[in-house]
Amino acid sequence: MLTGMQIAVIGGDARQLEIIRKLTEFDARLSLIGFEQLDHAFTGAVKEKLDEVDFSNIDAIILPVAGANLEGQVETIFSNEKVVLTEEILSKTPAHCTIYSGISNAYLNAITKQSKRNLVLLFSRDDVAIYNSIPTVEGTLMMAIQHTDFTIHGANVVILGLGRCGMSLVRTFHSLGAKVKVGARKTEHLARITEMGVTPFHLNDLWKEVKDTDILINTVPQLIVNASVISKLPAHTLIIDIASKPGGTDFRYAEKRGIKALLAPSLPGIVAPKTAGQILADVLVQLLQDDLIIRKGKVE
Amino acid sequence: MLTGMQIAVIGGDARQLEIIRKLTEFDARLSLIGFEQLDHAFTGAVKEKLDEVDFSNIDAIILPVAGANLEGQVETIFSNEKVVLTEEILSKTPAHCTIYSGISNAYLNAITKQSKRNLVLLFSRDDVAIYNSIPTVEGTLMMAIQHTDFTIHGANVVILGLGRCGMSLVRTFHSLGAKVKVGARKTEHLARITEMGVTPFHLNDLWKEVKDTDILINTVPQLIVNASVISKLPAHTLIIDIASKPGGTDFRYAEKRGIKALLAPSLPGIVAPKTAGQILADVLVQLLQDDLIIRKGKVE
Amino acid sequence: MLTGMQIAVIGGDARQLEIIRKLTEFDARLSLIGFEQLDHAFTGAVKEKLDEVDFSNIDAIILPVAGANLEGQVETIFSNEKVVLTEEILSKTPAHCTIYSGISNAYLNAITKQSKRNLVLLFSRDDVAIYNSIPTVEGTLMMAIQHTDFTIHGANVVILGLGRCGMSLVRTFHSLGAKVKVGARKTEHLARITEMGVTPFHLNDLWKEVKDTDILINTVPQLIVNASVISKLPAHTLIIDIASKPGGTDFRYAEKRGIKALLAPSLPGIVAPKTAGQILADVLVQLLQDDLIIRKGKVE
Amino acid sequence: MLTGMQIAVIGGDARQLEIIRKLTEFDARLSLIGFEQLDHAFTGAVKEKLDEVDFSNIDAIILPVAGANLEGQVETIFSNEKVVLTEEILSKTPAHCTIYSGISNAYLNAITKQSKRNLVLLFSRDDVAIYNSIPTVEGTLMMAIQHTDFTIHGANVVILGLGRCGMSLVRTFHSLGAKVKVGARKTEHLARITEMGVTPFHLNDLWKEVKDTDILINTVPQLIVNASVISKLPAHTLIIDIASKPGGTDFRYAEKRGIKALLAPSLPGIVAPKTAGQILADVLVQLLQDDLIIRKGKVE
Repeated sequence: MLTGMQIAVIGGDARQLEIIRKLTEFDARLSLIGFEQLDHAFTGAVKEKLDEVDFSNIDAIILPVAGANLEGQVETIFSNEKVVLTEEILSKTPAHCTIYSGISNAYLNAITKQSKRNLVLLFSRDDVAIYNSIPTVEGTLMMAIQHTDFTIHGANVVILGLGRCGMSLVRTFHSLGAKVKVGARKTEHLARITEMGVTPFHLNDLWKEVKDTDILINTVPQLIVNASVISKLPAHTLIIDIASKPGGTDFRYAEKRGIKALLAPSLPGIVAPKTAGQILADVLVQLLQDDLIIRKGKVE
Repeated sequence: MLTGMQIAVIGGDARQLEIIRKLTEFDARLSLIGFEQLDHAFTGAVKEKLDEVDFSNIDAIILPVAGANLEGQVETIFSNEKVVLTEEILSKTPAHCTIYSGISNAYLNAITKQSKRNLVLLFSRDDVAIYNSIPTVEGTLMMAIQHTDFTIHGANVVILGLGRCGMSLVRTFHSLGAKVKVGARKTEHLARITEMGVTPFHLNDLWKEVKDTDILINTVPQLIVNASVISKLPAHTLIIDIASKPGGTDFRYAEKRGIKALLAPSLPGIVAPKTAGQILADVLVQLLQDDLIIRKGKVE
Repeated sequence: MLTGMQIAVIGGDARQLEIIRKLTEFDARLSLIGFEQLDHAFTGAVKEKLDEVDFSNIDAIILPVAGANLEGQVETIFSNEKVVLTEEILSKTPAHCTIYSGISNAYLNAITKQSKRNLVLLFSRDDVAIYNSIPTVEGTLMMAIQHTDFTIHGANVVILGLGRCGMSLVRTFHSLGAKVKVGARKTEHLARITEMGVTPFHLNDLWKEVKDTDILINTVPQLIVNASVISKLPAHTLIIDIASKPGGTDFRYAEKRGIKALLAPSLPGIVAPKTAGQILADVLVQLLQDDLIIRKGKVE
Repeated sequence: MLTGMQIAVIGGDARQLEIIRKLTEFDARLSLIGFEQLDHAFTGAVKEKLDEVDFSNIDAIILPVAGANLEGQVETIFSNEKVVLTEEILSKTPAHCTIYSGISNAYLNAITKQSKRNLVLLFSRDDVAIYNSIPTVEGTLMMAIQHTDFTIHGANVVILGLGRCGMSLVRTFHSLGAKVKVGARKTEHLARITEMGVTPFHLNDLWKEVKDTDILINTVPQLIVNASVISKLPAHTLIIDIASKPGGTDFRYAEKRGIKALLAPSLPGIVAPKTAGQILADVLVQLLQDDLIIRKGKVE
């Protein structure tokens, strides 16, 4: 339980609601900033404006997945007010106050460093990335179904990378009956691909392996789907790139060759916001409980 | 091969193009009726108007999936001309001429009966239904991903019926990590459901089994998702009904209760027209070859 | 429940114990014939000798899977006494008394016909055959692992027949990473094989399809793995024939060619007697309950 | 290719034959020591006695999986002669000569260190461990089928560890229809277990999670299946421990409680020696080729 914890939840989209729901279930007291237009009320949670909050007794601050922009503004779907997080605000919090965000940027790095507050990036965690691979895979499936005139079943699907998302993609496309080939570099990845019942190849040979590809899915955040690879693809190939921006595809060349190439947006929040919120909520509760135990231990 | 066969292909959508491609590959000669606006040319296939065709040497007529409407009109995506199939036309064909359609209706039944021509309904065949279950499942997946805010993985999915489509749905949703329960009536179906690793129940107990359902997929063409079943569903349940029109769901009651219920259209032609056309083309070539062998046998 | 039913259980092996356990759970009263050496006692079940039983109030007789031999003798693992079922005994039972056996033979057919008693063969039921396919598949796996020096994963496995057992074999060997080809005759079977993600072929082409086979599994009770097929197999192929005796393999020719060919015994009772007994017990309870309901309905 | 390489293959079992076959295919020249009784001849490979070999031009030495014993003796299945590897022998080889073994011990470590020769342990490599997980899983399946009277399908199976072998076990037992729970410690492992569609738990809670376990499979090389865990197991549970000797199970306590617990031997060489040999051969060829390229690079 999180009894006795005072947490500020600042901005965010539908995912944040799952976090609020879960934290109140665990008996935390919440200040909700940027939620005036939300009809729903949660027991133990109070909607406040940023300047109304007494940050001196806030144990943790929860930002949206995107954190803040380079001016410190936090996105608030459920409010028209502009909410800006500053170093000044952070400095008012107790020294143990931890800031949780999905990702970070120069601004957020700077204000947490200056205020000497701990910044935890949920999207850098392996467990979050693996849980998020589930909605990402379903979003990729949806894109593959929408943007082709053939079935995934029986299609030649090439997947690049056997990381946290790649492994989930391989398992799923294989189980749907696609003929899956997977490109990787590490020998243990090539071994695991074999064990999973699909065909491995070394990424050095990528350009040799793509000539009858129907769907090419990239998860590697490097420019590996380059012009020399794209020039080997059949005209009907669909490229779906789910590596983080700017992806690993030469989109300009793909367009020139008339090959459809899609840079997938962050899919979890789009195809399954409720699940995506629960994933974050579950991990957050675990981290906050661990914090609380450590802090209590120190006090005693 | 289909060398020597003269076939009239009348109307249809993108699927028909796969059929034309395949038949010409097998060396049949084709009269294409209702394709004036199609840019592409096929070797061995001639675009003609209905009244230009010499039906006295046509060995087979291929209609679109939908056949003809109750006035005999055949849908033509690639033409503005109205094409009407009549008993008179059929009577001009040789006695052995076979008419192939996806489905039939009173009009088509009547004119083939009167002209004593053999009518083959491809969608009544078990093999076509099973092949079509593949794009149908992918279309159902797409609908499930689009119309929920949670992932299929981990969701409680109830599937009704273990027929030609039901079995494919069960296999796929199970492999995607859903918690699948399947309702059926035949004892051998309940046994097969168990063997497939999911949970069976008898359709008589449907109303007892749905209380925590996230997605309900019906394949049974009877009104089994009735008011008493719907009243037991959670408010967030998504119903997808893929049974042939009018489906097996009380849509009026579902709407009244605020439960989203979708009657899936015929999905193969929508989500994978190319694959759907190939399925029909493969079966047609097989049937036409069998016809040819029998006919030659008789002649010799 | 089976309250009020009086059932004679005659002979059998470990599977029969699961049946006894289940029937007593459902409150049936049992006469156990041929179980003197069994230590265990079941509430509601009395061990008796055949000539001590008052058959005039026996509602059902349960024989072992094998029924009786051609002299009427019933196999009794837990007894040294010879137990012979006769027409005379059956004639003493009430007219509604039903005889349950796994399989039958000329003797059993004759005495049930003469005494006009209903004989139900559990192994003829589709549901029992499908449930039994589960332990059969696991036994086949065990044999394949024991009798080869390579892994099933990556092996070329040919399975003949997509019946009740064939489908379970296909699913399992595919999921273990074998490269599976399946031979069948019906067009709907060829379609289903495709949908399952493995490679179909027509049994007429069997001899053309086996040249790189590592493991050949036959489920078809006809001599299809004949000399002309065997002569095409590599020397290291393992043949496992699970069709009912005498199987569908020319074992003499296989031996001559030095190819290991195994006629699998009835595997469920060997590899998983407890599960095999539960399968029969579950179906029996269902059948006996249906009987009871019908009989009560008639009386009222 | 390995043209120009001179390799000494010393002792070993059936797996070594696959290595010899593959190396000669790649055009290496081989000295086979401890193979006098082997009938088969390989082109490019010469059977020699240890003291006949000119080690001054040997580029690589390949030992059996077990390496040597503490007296330096190498196991030779195909010979009656005693073969002992010494520091003296290694010192005669060129400085670049690499020793390949499956595992090592104090003796082998000492003589390679003293002679300053590179020792490569194949079984320490992740890729070898993952490839070997395939025959290990099939051997575990075989043991589970042989040593229980119920089917794996439907059984409650608990697997401990999601390492190189654990992941393969989870995939396979899940696909066979077992109800699988997996214990792990790392948060990313708990996430991956969830993604794979089975139930995760933290190993700290092991004792709470085992009360209805039918089969318990351990892969963790620490004593985690201790008395307090075993005391919670049902009497019919089968424990299979595939962690390296001495395993992670309190076998003494299991026996006392009457619970069957098996310490699996090294399964790949037993259930699939041919595949196990090919795994090693494939990796060896890759490593030897890399060596050759590096060495040539240095020379030029």
